[in-house]
Amino acid sequence: MLSIGLFGAGRIGQIHGRNLAASPRARLAAIADPFPDAAAALSAATGAAVREADEILADRSIDAVLIGTPTDTHADFIDRAAAAGKAVFCEKPVDLSSERIRQTLARVDKAGIPLMIGFNRRFDPNFAALRRRLADGAAGDVELVTILSRDPAPPPLSYIAHSGGLFRDMMIHDFDMARFLLGEDAVEIYAVGSALVDPAIGEAGDVDTAAVVVRTASGKICQISNSRRATYGYDQRIEVHGSKGLLSAGNVHETTVLFAGAKGVVADPVQNFFLERYASAYRHEIEAFIDAVEGGTKPSPDGADGLQAQLMADAATVSRETGQPVRIG
Amino acid sequence: MLSIGLFGAGRIGQIHGRNLAASPRARLAAIADPFPDAAAALSAATGAAVREADEILADRSIDAVLIGTPTDTHADFIDRAAAAGKAVFCEKPVDLSSERIRQTLARVDKAGIPLMIGFNRRFDPNFAALRRRLADGAAGDVELVTILSRDPAPPPLSYIAHSGGLFRDMMIHDFDMARFLLGEDAVEIYAVGSALVDPAIGEAGDVDTAAVVVRTASGKICQISNSRRATYGYDQRIEVHGSKGLLSAGNVHETTVLFAGAKGVVADPVQNFFLERYASAYRHEIEAFIDAVEGGTKPSPDGADGLQAQLMADAATVSRETGQPVRIG
Amino acid sequence: MLSIGLFGAGRIGQIHGRNLAASPRARLAAIADPFPDAAAALSAATGAAVREADEILADRSIDAVLIGTPTDTHADFIDRAAAAGKAVFCEKPVDLSSERIRQTLARVDKAGIPLMIGFNRRFDPNFAALRRRLADGAAGDVELVTILSRDPAPPPLSYIAHSGGLFRDMMIHDFDMARFLLGEDAVEIYAVGSALVDPAIGEAGDVDTAAVVVRTASGKICQISNSRRATYGYDQRIEVHGSKGLLSAGNVHETTVLFAGAKGVVADPVQNFFLERYASAYRHEIEAFIDAVEGGTKPSPDGADGLQAQLMADAATVSRETGQPVRIG
Amino acid sequence: MLSIGLFGAGRIGQIHGRNLAASPRARLAAIADPFPDAAAALSAATGAAVREADEILADRSIDAVLIGTPTDTHADFIDRAAAAGKAVFCEKPVDLSSERIRQTLARVDKAGIPLMIGFNRRFDPNFAALRRRLADGAAGDVELVTILSRDPAPPPLSYIAHSGGLFRDMMIHDFDMARFLLGEDAVEIYAVGSALVDPAIGEAGDVDTAAVVVRTASGKICQISNSRRATYGYDQRIEVHGSKGLLSAGNVHETTVLFAGAKGVVADPVQNFFLERYASAYRHEIEAFIDAVEGGTKPSPDGADGLQAQLMADAATVSRETGQPVRIG
Repeated sequence: MLSIGLFGAGRIGQIHGRNLAASPRARLAAIADPFPDAAAALSAATGAAVREADEILADRSIDAVLIGTPTDTHADFIDRAAAAGKAVFCEKPVDLSSERIRQTLARVDKAGIPLMIGFNRRFDPNFAALRRRLADGAAGDVELVTILSRDPAPPPLSYIAHSGGLFRDMMIHDFDMARFLLGEDAVEIYAVGSALVDPAIGEAGDVDTAAVVVRTASGKICQISNSRRATYGYDQRIEVHGSKGLLSAGNVHETTVLFAGAKGVVADPVQNFFLERYASAYRHEIEAFIDAVEGGTKPSPDGADGLQAQLMADAATVSRETGQPVRIG
Repeated sequence: MLSIGLFGAGRIGQIHGRNLAASPRARLAAIADPFPDAAAALSAATGAAVREADEILADRSIDAVLIGTPTDTHADFIDRAAAAGKAVFCEKPVDLSSERIRQTLARVDKAGIPLMIGFNRRFDPNFAALRRRLADGAAGDVELVTILSRDPAPPPLSYIAHSGGLFRDMMIHDFDMARFLLGEDAVEIYAVGSALVDPAIGEAGDVDTAAVVVRTASGKICQISNSRRATYGYDQRIEVHGSKGLLSAGNVHETTVLFAGAKGVVADPVQNFFLERYASAYRHEIEAFIDAVEGGTKPSPDGADGLQAQLMADAATVSRETGQPVRIG
Repeated sequence: MLSIGLFGAGRIGQIHGRNLAASPRARLAAIADPFPDAAAALSAATGAAVREADEILADRSIDAVLIGTPTDTHADFIDRAAAAGKAVFCEKPVDLSSERIRQTLARVDKAGIPLMIGFNRRFDPNFAALRRRLADGAAGDVELVTILSRDPAPPPLSYIAHSGGLFRDMMIHDFDMARFLLGEDAVEIYAVGSALVDPAIGEAGDVDTAAVVVRTASGKICQISNSRRATYGYDQRIEVHGSKGLLSAGNVHETTVLFAGAKGVVADPVQNFFLERYASAYRHEIEAFIDAVEGGTKPSPDGADGLQAQLMADAATVSRETGQPVRIG
Repeated sequence: MLSIGLFGAGRIGQIHGRNLAASPRARLAAIADPFPDAAAALSAATGAAVREADEILADRSIDAVLIGTPTDTHADFIDRAAAAGKAVFCEKPVDLSSERIRQTLARVDKAGIPLMIGFNRRFDPNFAALRRRLADGAAGDVELVTILSRDPAPPPLSYIAHSGGLFRDMMIHDFDMARFLLGEDAVEIYAVGSALVDPAIGEAGDVDTAAVVVRTASGKICQISNSRRATYGYDQRIEVHGSKGLLSAGNVHETTVLFAGAKGVVADPVQNFFLERYASAYRHEIEAFIDAVEGGTKPSPDGADGLQAQLMADAATVSRETGQPVRIG
């Protein structure tokens, strides 16, 4: 049974902490968070002790750490965990600076610790099943990938100001999904974006509506679109057009109930946001992390995956600002 | 090219008349209707002459007649057409009395004329495709058939009074569909019914909501339900549970448009009523009639099919009134 | 926190035991099962002690018992738990004899203990949502209910011999669902059945394919059909036709993945059987039991619900054997 | 009744010719085609005379001409019809050269004749219904448009060589659809493309797989993707993400039949190609042309629409070749 310390007891830390506590294969050994209330609440729910981060890193009985802290502390925590020889599961992104990511990955590499990055969507049962069928050749050679991703509502402006922008904060998930589905790295990216949902987002220098075209070396193409607001909930759809057919995975509705009346046939809304839609994905990714650490295999997605997604987000950001396609790598 | 005379220029006569006029394989030769306005309107739209029924029957250049008159005149028109040696397409039912149907079928048999009965649903592209796949063995042996059929709104009480009751007027289509899908005749029928939509229908001795169980000699089972009112339009669904799987055919929506908003994902209403839903079925059944007459093959569905459906409707009517299952044949 | 003893560590006991162990609101205090291996496995997974049933009933620190033993022991365990003053959750059915159920309900009544019956489908999120919307008036007055229920494969013949027959063993769930949706008791039932899936089932005096029509005092109608075998998995669908529209709840597919190829557009299979399809229903029903016991409210569904469903199953069994509709109550 | 001459009796001419012959509001007066067999076949089916193009243009009893000839003759025929003062319906595109289009539009303008361009998809009942609801404000302000368009199989290489390339030959329909849905002209276009379906298409200097991003002055975004090959038929989907919700219109399946078996639930294939999918669109666009000519209103889509779509196709072609976004207008 893997003994795991948790850094960060915020929204995502609460999810991971509870999943760890419920897993028969892991033990949530300790929780660290500068906000005592958050840590205490999670401690009460899971029975895990609240401790300082340093103590957790120094505790030899703890095998691994899960980093769910604010983005600007991720790389530092990974560095320290690497120095302490602990396996690491870190929420995306590793850092907003790709240079900083490279430095940290070098330290991880030198320390020889397993590092897994929390691209949770790879573990959504629908997307994971699609990917397995793709790998089994069901759709033949991948040619065109379409990813549509929309949030129910924009985050507060204060959040947006420190988010790194839509491409690094929101579309980064889709960049990782693009690589997951294309099976190949991007060589060029072109991005456009507008502030159509809220002009204040535009005034803050960001966009809330964006579209990207990704090209790979072999000529595969991926289209991604994002909006920060969808009146109908959390829109998360992918499709892969291949030489043998089309694989797609759609949204998850709240229930299967339909109402037929004079205005048409109404299906339930789609699940509203990520905590609901990706509840099982969060559980599955933790299981995959435990599998890798216990089995001595390389975690996936790993730090290199985190870096590639960040490079795509950087390129998209530059492309949107300059109006020119940007080459990668 | 088949030369056809039309008896009846009401709602259904207008459809058949226009389809005949548009078919490159038939000529709408003449129209007879005691209401001059109806006949004139159809004449104006198709170019066909308005004539007396007797003249049409006596005209040797006319090969066939299509009977779309009120139900209580069907058998008499068939008799006269048989005497005149003309091929006959007659709207369902042949008559509300099965005894009268037998007499007419004997005359048809003796005259050796082709007689086709207008069970239009067999020619709906969806139901016809399902039936072909059933015949091809896709679902294996038929075990359980479910037929759901609901009208958007009840007919006027004045119509109901002379309709023969829900089982003979509305469910007769489903009885024919049951035979079409079961591939076997009913041996026993049990029916229940209520007047839930409009108490006045109950006071008139009829029901507006009904359910029937049909059993065949080999033990196949069919469930049928009807309602005279569906707020969501014309509900026409069938499914066949067989040893190898389930074949079903659903409703046809007005368009493929979906709207996703805060209240869910809304599909367009289903097509509202039979003129819209079965527009192509009406065309296909006329083509099938022409095929049979020109090819010298037996039309299908024929008079015997009309009789069997009527016997089922009679049995259901008695069952509903007595509260007991009723055997057939 | 409610302290609960579990009788029976078979397939259903394993589910309930694990759900109790995982619930933050209950404590799985002890497990009793004559088969030591089953009890030991569940004990290992949950940490609960293995004890004799008598000890559990005598232990005053245990508030409630959950009965997941074979059907023919249910009534006896309820009687003993009532005598011991414990709250009871009992799997359906209370007993195969309605007379025996009445005796036990009288004892439960006298003892004043809460008794909940495990009609799990009421707690399926889809069906529960449909029922809430029905209660909110979304579909208006209920007129016609359709319930389609099919198992992926028949149980072993040895099981069928002691099952009480399809109506008491399988369709009993649908009878409870019918009452849940109709909001009224049945006054008359007509049933037909055949052995089409496996002739050996017919030789054993049972059926594997069946259809039932239920009528209520106010004239509402419900149709139910069952098959013991569906090549496409566990088919569980309901629909309610009301004066304002149609509410339906369909099957749950394994994922949302679609494959479009030359043969059509293929959706994933539906979830195969009840452990998968009703996993969350089992969790929710246990929570409802805890709510009722802790809140001092009457559990629902209760013993009277269990009796009514059994009376419907008895009536259907007699109807199928005699070929006549059977009145209830 | 409008008297119409038809130029071109090839695949598209046959469709328009038969629709004109079947319309009660038009008369197919004459057919011109250098291939006598094609003209004769259509003449036999419709009863219209075969004549020389010059004769048709000189015949004062003919009100309008429909141009369904090869692309490189369109502009010339329009010029001649303008000179003859006839109303014109011309298949897309007006010409592969935007300069030539401008010259012809100037002549049309000077002659004051009505000119309608055959962007048939605007008249598809599904897309037209979506557009009406958009115009009614159902989705609020348009922000993101997604158009997916795929042919079942690539045309012969010989056709591709003279097609003007994928953007002018195939995606031009989607460019028009983009304008139809955006309600605004494109200001910049970025295109990528690959030859993934058939390398010979790449060797011929064209692509068979392509994606485009379109931006408008107000910041609306449209994504389009094309493939020359879809194993699952003719894929034609649009969706519009707006401030109030998402409107989408999907593919049309051959029937509503579903088969549920061990491998999943299989819907019928989508309609295979444009003759089937857009059969009713072709009828509706001819009716719209007749409406405009008879009502003296401006046809829509008109020559300016044809020019704008062509400018978008030109820009996409340049963008794909240079790798840079291209501004329009």
